[in-house]
Amino acid sequence: MKVMMKRGASLKEVGNVLSGAEEAGFSPYVMRQEERVTVCLPGADRRRVEALAASLEGVQGVAAFSKNYKLVSREFKSADTVVNVSGVPVGGKEVVLIGGPCAVESRDQLFRAAEAMKQAGAHLLRGGAFKPRSSPYAFQGLKDRGLAFLSEAREAFGLPVVTEVMAPEDVARVGEHADVLQIGSRNMQNFRLLEAAGGAENPVLLKRGMMSTIEEMLQAAEYIVAGGNPNVILCERGIRTFERQTRNTLDITAVAVLKDLSHLPVIVDPSHSTGHRRYVIPAGLAGIAAGADGLIVESHPCPDEALCDGTQSLLPEQFRDLASATKAVARAVGRDLLA
Amino acid sequence: MKVMMKRGASLKEVGNVLSGAEEAGFSPYVMRQEERVTVCLPGADRRRVEALAASLEGVQGVAAFSKNYKLVSREFKSADTVVNVSGVPVGGKEVVLIGGPCAVESRDQLFRAAEAMKQAGAHLLRGGAFKPRSSPYAFQGLKDRGLAFLSEAREAFGLPVVTEVMAPEDVARVGEHADVLQIGSRNMQNFRLLEAAGGAENPVLLKRGMMSTIEEMLQAAEYIVAGGNPNVILCERGIRTFERQTRNTLDITAVAVLKDLSHLPVIVDPSHSTGHRRYVIPAGLAGIAAGADGLIVESHPCPDEALCDGTQSLLPEQFRDLASATKAVARAVGRDLLA
Amino acid sequence: MKVMMKRGASLKEVGNVLSGAEEAGFSPYVMRQEERVTVCLPGADRRRVEALAASLEGVQGVAAFSKNYKLVSREFKSADTVVNVSGVPVGGKEVVLIGGPCAVESRDQLFRAAEAMKQAGAHLLRGGAFKPRSSPYAFQGLKDRGLAFLSEAREAFGLPVVTEVMAPEDVARVGEHADVLQIGSRNMQNFRLLEAAGGAENPVLLKRGMMSTIEEMLQAAEYIVAGGNPNVILCERGIRTFERQTRNTLDITAVAVLKDLSHLPVIVDPSHSTGHRRYVIPAGLAGIAAGADGLIVESHPCPDEALCDGTQSLLPEQFRDLASATKAVARAVGRDLLA
Amino acid sequence: MKVMMKRGASLKEVGNVLSGAEEAGFSPYVMRQEERVTVCLPGADRRRVEALAASLEGVQGVAAFSKNYKLVSREFKSADTVVNVSGVPVGGKEVVLIGGPCAVESRDQLFRAAEAMKQAGAHLLRGGAFKPRSSPYAFQGLKDRGLAFLSEAREAFGLPVVTEVMAPEDVARVGEHADVLQIGSRNMQNFRLLEAAGGAENPVLLKRGMMSTIEEMLQAAEYIVAGGNPNVILCERGIRTFERQTRNTLDITAVAVLKDLSHLPVIVDPSHSTGHRRYVIPAGLAGIAAGADGLIVESHPCPDEALCDGTQSLLPEQFRDLASATKAVARAVGRDLLA
Repeated sequence: MKVMMKRGASLKEVGNVLSGAEEAGFSPYVMRQEERVTVCLPGADRRRVEALAASLEGVQGVAAFSKNYKLVSREFKSADTVVNVSGVPVGGKEVVLIGGPCAVESRDQLFRAAEAMKQAGAHLLRGGAFKPRSSPYAFQGLKDRGLAFLSEAREAFGLPVVTEVMAPEDVARVGEHADVLQIGSRNMQNFRLLEAAGGAENPVLLKRGMMSTIEEMLQAAEYIVAGGNPNVILCERGIRTFERQTRNTLDITAVAVLKDLSHLPVIVDPSHSTGHRRYVIPAGLAGIAAGADGLIVESHPCPDEALCDGTQSLLPEQFRDLASATKAVARAVGRDLLA
Repeated sequence: MKVMMKRGASLKEVGNVLSGAEEAGFSPYVMRQEERVTVCLPGADRRRVEALAASLEGVQGVAAFSKNYKLVSREFKSADTVVNVSGVPVGGKEVVLIGGPCAVESRDQLFRAAEAMKQAGAHLLRGGAFKPRSSPYAFQGLKDRGLAFLSEAREAFGLPVVTEVMAPEDVARVGEHADVLQIGSRNMQNFRLLEAAGGAENPVLLKRGMMSTIEEMLQAAEYIVAGGNPNVILCERGIRTFERQTRNTLDITAVAVLKDLSHLPVIVDPSHSTGHRRYVIPAGLAGIAAGADGLIVESHPCPDEALCDGTQSLLPEQFRDLASATKAVARAVGRDLLA
Repeated sequence: MKVMMKRGASLKEVGNVLSGAEEAGFSPYVMRQEERVTVCLPGADRRRVEALAASLEGVQGVAAFSKNYKLVSREFKSADTVVNVSGVPVGGKEVVLIGGPCAVESRDQLFRAAEAMKQAGAHLLRGGAFKPRSSPYAFQGLKDRGLAFLSEAREAFGLPVVTEVMAPEDVARVGEHADVLQIGSRNMQNFRLLEAAGGAENPVLLKRGMMSTIEEMLQAAEYIVAGGNPNVILCERGIRTFERQTRNTLDITAVAVLKDLSHLPVIVDPSHSTGHRRYVIPAGLAGIAAGADGLIVESHPCPDEALCDGTQSLLPEQFRDLASATKAVARAVGRDLLA
Repeated sequence: MKVMMKRGASLKEVGNVLSGAEEAGFSPYVMRQEERVTVCLPGADRRRVEALAASLEGVQGVAAFSKNYKLVSREFKSADTVVNVSGVPVGGKEVVLIGGPCAVESRDQLFRAAEAMKQAGAHLLRGGAFKPRSSPYAFQGLKDRGLAFLSEAREAFGLPVVTEVMAPEDVARVGEHADVLQIGSRNMQNFRLLEAAGGAENPVLLKRGMMSTIEEMLQAAEYIVAGGNPNVILCERGIRTFERQTRNTLDITAVAVLKDLSHLPVIVDPSHSTGHRRYVIPAGLAGIAAGADGLIVESHPCPDEALCDGTQSLLPEQFRDLASATKAVARAVGRDLLA
């Protein structure tokens, strides 16, 4: 629900609506378009909002939100959002590459991987410290030790770090060690986690749920932006279908649809979507050709020894090939690879 | 990973493995089959477990788990598990009915619903206080006020209560007000929440993710059982497909597959799977015929005024029809409706 | 397109429209509701129909069809259609069982199967002479020899026969040997075959495409009925999804939806939908509970030696169990098993 | 089944196997690898083949086919197949563009479309004379009149023509008017049609079924090649999923998988896969980046007046943009646009 203030409502009147809403247990926020102020009350019950509004000055009316998402839409903001990741612009004219291992396995493994990524042209380093795994008996990451290694590697190689956060209570801790908070596919509709990410300082990389529609993905992003964090990077990583030759089905058109409907940057994960090393480069280049702002790719110094996702991890020299091919395709569509 | 103790290993030797594992940051638990003790270390790294085991007495060897789930399987326990929900047995010879509104909207609405459910033959009352919603702008439940109303209704009508829990930090609070903790479809792979539910006293109703496989569902249940909570009720609630006449596609055969692979009770949600009131009864009866141990069904005193899911909510008199039809079909397959 | 005649248009005027339409290359047919005659021109181009209508008497106007299907809908005919299969009523109060092997493999195998089906209580005999197979190198049926064996078995055991037809040019030949023409899942949108079946004397069993929506299935049935053959039996046989524990996902709610939207009989194939013998009975009973008018089930005297689909074929004694369980569930939902 | 001849078997011995197999009702063909001859008997029953082989000289043994497809695989032929379409090479180093309207609506419409395609850089002209439509009441094409217009347009503009064939009995007739026979998505497993196409002189463009796996597509192509027609072009056109923002989900990785497993050319249809004009160019460029050998794209002189698929048809000037962007992306991946 939203409370639309009269044109020229005073700050005090707006303030009264805000404090009344907070007392009623809502989580209000203010939007200003031209001279009009609207107090948004996400998830509030119409009848209670109407009761509240009836008792306050300066209110023009009460209405339901007209769409399921707004702040992330092109209608709300037509220009592309460029997310600044510790100096690396994501969503600008130049596309970026994020590389690294699926999981942080040891300090040594991570450092070899980070060095290889740096040399191969990656702009950001990825690596999981907390690993969501279907089975409770699978390797679940080094957790806090992994975070510490990531912090070290960031300093050592000057690569900003992307890593996954799995629970609201970890957001602050992960945010201290990493530059970008990744919300994984299985958590795309973990709404408490989205709310926590909305209160974070770090940019958020939001992966599409393997079972989620494009519209649901935009609504999930809206949770984060409405929570106060405008720095969201969307990531298409494949959806579930009946096809079994690939791990998931990369929904390449989703890139174009997301760029059409939203101003947020969109990247592609050709590793999880294909599941096989030899399809990662063609799928990644397809992403760039379709308009993606970057790629996030798994690469491991010794894929055969990886604790997870080895079959889909590029060798470092393949990552280098990917970087040069990405540059060529980016230029073909009027962009470039970030230097 | 798991550490297999020698036959006849002493309690002290087992204790040393446990404490060594805890110091190393693992979360060990013990399984005993016949005279053999195994210390399980879910998610641990093989190399570190081997290093640990090499330094300890009474250890026979170290191995990976042979399956992705074990405790929930028929191989581990062949007899059906009957979950006792405050006196209502779920998973026994007699099938049960869980009814109530999608969301708790007010004290009055909930009380009218609970009274109608009691009269119509429901054994448990359902109702959402915390509502996971795709859009941040949709009604998200009365939250703690809703919990309090559920508590009151439970006392007033003598119906145990099932309600959803959305985050680990809410598990204890929700568990005080409700009898059964529901983990919703979007959270089926929220592993932190599963772990928290594994530590709860309450039985857990685990809904299948809308694009999760049967195997993933059993692994999710394994998280809860391995965490120490054996009282898990599985719920098939429809999966996502290309078909658009129904909200989801009820995977009826999943009922038979789950009963075949697992000893846990299985119920069916014909409301979310169909999305239309007039298909709820045939879908529910199909569930019973396929071997389900019960149904969870949305019913609202005034579906047209419901804040969510009104189109799929049965009228109270339809719920009564469902109860008598369920009784007939249950008897046809050698069971009965719980009195 | 359709040409609506004026109220009271003469037979001659209607005749002129029909012959003009035929000359123009259309395939017209006449529908009469109350006192109003409409000449239907399936698939015709609006501009050409308008030109034709402008030159003729008694025409009220020209319009597009308002729906994608009409003759098969409940709006057109509210009472259930009962298809008479050589004396066996399909779609009446009593449900029917169709049983037999996937493929006719030899005279001996078919006769043993037919005898077992007769004894186990099947009302119709199924068996494939022409087998559509994904690979050109798989066994494709005995073809005409298989048809001859089916004819013999029908006489010997007094069981009407259902068998698949794969091409328009085979419709007449198959129709001489069999009672019911089956159109398989892969051919549900083979429109030429549908048209040919529309001109046949035999009832048609139309299986849902594994990739087809309920609406497309009704449109496919409309092709047959609009072609002049009102005796269509719809068959839900599972759709493709991401789930891999079963061969397909039986869309049980489709039974209720089809019965709601159409007056045609609906049966369920629990063999192809599940793919495993031990799930066939629960899935079949679910079908009856959901409102199906019968089941079509694979059964083989020696499933382990079957040339195709052995793992999903019931043993004859299991078919007998299915029959008695079907009777019990049918009675529970107010119906019965055909004697 | 296949009959493997002894090394050095005489021509007469091979001939006897062939004629024996034909008498038995099989459809044999011969494969020769190095000095070894194998007589292939697609779809034959093992027991009958063994009986046949036992009575003949020069036979080494009998075996089942080891794979579901063979002739279309890279193992059988490692070099890329280049299909010559009346002088236009498909599958070579240079990518090709196929453009034109969904349906032939009139001579005038087709000629305007063909002229625009010629000017915009298309190498082949597409246009449907026979239209498979879900509803019997939808426009089904101009049929033979449409074929005649296509023939005329081919002469007038020098563009080879691709058009759909829907039934075995039409293969010869369509093949006289068109250069390439298209087998549509709904007919990918119409095995009689595949067999008929296997006997045709024309190259075949085989579209992937909208819920067919990659492996099934290769098996469908195998039907055509095993039937004697090696000139098959594979076309990825989107599969059915739960996503609703696009008409289908373009399975972009299928391009890379098909190129990996098969030597046949692979093209992409970004029109049917996306369903919206504004996503056609990004999806098409993604196809080229992923390794496709060409694109087939709907374009109409006046999309808003199109009798079908107008919303996904490019304007002629957009097709020109697509051509120049295709050239740039093709060059970026080491190829070029055919001049």
